[in-house]
Amino acid sequence: MASKLSSLALHSLLVLALAALLNLASNSLNLKTYFDTSSFSAKPTHNMTVKLYGSPSSTCTRRVATVLKEKNVPYELIPIDLGKGEHKKPEFTSLQPFGQVPVLKDGDFTIYESRAIGRYIALKYGNQGTPGLIPSPSDFEAWGRFEEAASIEQNNFDPFASGISGEKIFKLMRGGTTDEKRVKELTDTLYAKLEAYEVILSKRKYLAGDTITLADLFHLPYGTMITERLGIDALNSKPNVARWWKDITSRPSWQAVKDGA
Amino acid sequence: MASKLSSLALHSLLVLALAALLNLASNSLNLKTYFDTSSFSAKPTHNMTVKLYGSPSSTCTRRVATVLKEKNVPYELIPIDLGKGEHKKPEFTSLQPFGQVPVLKDGDFTIYESRAIGRYIALKYGNQGTPGLIPSPSDFEAWGRFEEAASIEQNNFDPFASGISGEKIFKLMRGGTTDEKRVKELTDTLYAKLEAYEVILSKRKYLAGDTITLADLFHLPYGTMITERLGIDALNSKPNVARWWKDITSRPSWQAVKDGA
Repeated sequence: MASKLSSLALHSLLVLALAALLNLASNSLNLKTYFDTSSFSAKPTHNMTVKLYGSPSSTCTRRVATVLKEKNVPYELIPIDLGKGEHKKPEFTSLQPFGQVPVLKDGDFTIYESRAIGRYIALKYGNQGTPGLIPSPSDFEAWGRFEEAASIEQNNFDPFASGISGEKIFKLMRGGTTDEKRVKELTDTLYAKLEAYEVILSKRKYLAGDTITLADLFHLPYGTMITERLGIDALNSKPNVARWWKDITSRPSWQAVKDGA
Repeated sequence: MASKLSSLALHSLLVLALAALLNLASNSLNLKTYFDTSSFSAKPTHNMTVKLYGSPSSTCTRRVATVLKEKNVPYELIPIDLGKGEHKKPEFTSLQPFGQVPVLKDGDFTIYESRAIGRYIALKYGNQGTPGLIPSPSDFEAWGRFEEAASIEQNNFDPFASGISGEKIFKLMRGGTTDEKRVKELTDTLYAKLEAYEVILSKRKYLAGDTITLADLFHLPYGTMITERLGIDALNSKPNVARWWKDITSRPSWQAVKDGA
């Protein structure tokens, strides 16, 4: 009887322990689901295809398309005819109040601003395609270094490369005339900024470390525009910058996208 | 005998189950430590004080100081005299190859670019001061919306507000003359961009949702410069933008920093 009682007590304890175990396993799974961004993959939805609203000729649409290809995310390009001003019509501005391409729809979620979309894709589709395009936010220093590199692109490259493109290409398309003095200022500043890039890239393979991140990829559309279309050879003018530029422009993602998203 | 054997078997199972339970608990703890960025706080180091190298008059230094105050991170401002060109001297450019303030040192980690520093602080000191300045990266949609808002500030606000400030203030300090045609273009564009801000801020309290984030705070330095110093009233010209602007400029962090970091 004592033995039977002890057996029953043990049995009860076992059941409790197993219940706790299952509960903890479930919590652990939740924790992992909640915090381990690298373990995520796209969840199947009714409408699986990611839709990219943009223009194949738009630099910012190509920026997003490059990230989608790096992360092996199939997408459908919904063309927005910039020549016809479709990006300024209510159907589009209801998605993007600034009237700019691109916009991404992923299931029911709509997001705009090309670099924000790139970050969203790199995080959500973290466990497919090229790894590490965005570091784990749990590694503060790697993440900080990535943020620093992403800000360098926005503040020390884009204003000059897109500014030159604006003066030499987009202004003419709108019937304006190029301000050559401004182009010279922007070009001189770009060359000066790339001196600092050379210092950074003499110490690391890529801008944020020894693996490629979004911070590198984000340079591709305007870097290619000034180099190939406008013949400004700034990105080939210093050894480490040229090495880096050759590396990132050679990627299959960019080769597939550079002439149309 | 059968009962004793069964009891022993149960006992063994219980031991195994408890061992598994402890192991899982330990894994769960590691997972939490590894991925729950909100649970982190600064680790004590030999040199606890965060050092902010910058100028009290610099907009970008003030951007970082605002975030440090929001997150209750004590810091020491190491003044860099821009008038004497200290930011272009080797001691400084060895920290920041572009020769720009601010730079932050947190223990042995050095980081520059004001918005990158802000993101690093908000993430690393996640569990102190104002919560949610950066959403959990495990919530893709909240994080994507934050990234969208942060990109809006960089691309649809900063180029115009800092561009106007550059023409009306910084150019004169360097002995240049203001290009008034350019100021008018920048100002007109800023007003047009704020139409879209009005649409967004009629739906949400802040740019990325109903709680304040870094994306809002990042507007403060140049927004205040054009409003208070240059008398450009764009941020008070639309009801929801004005409501938002009053809200964020009233924060104690900004009030403590706006006249000197």
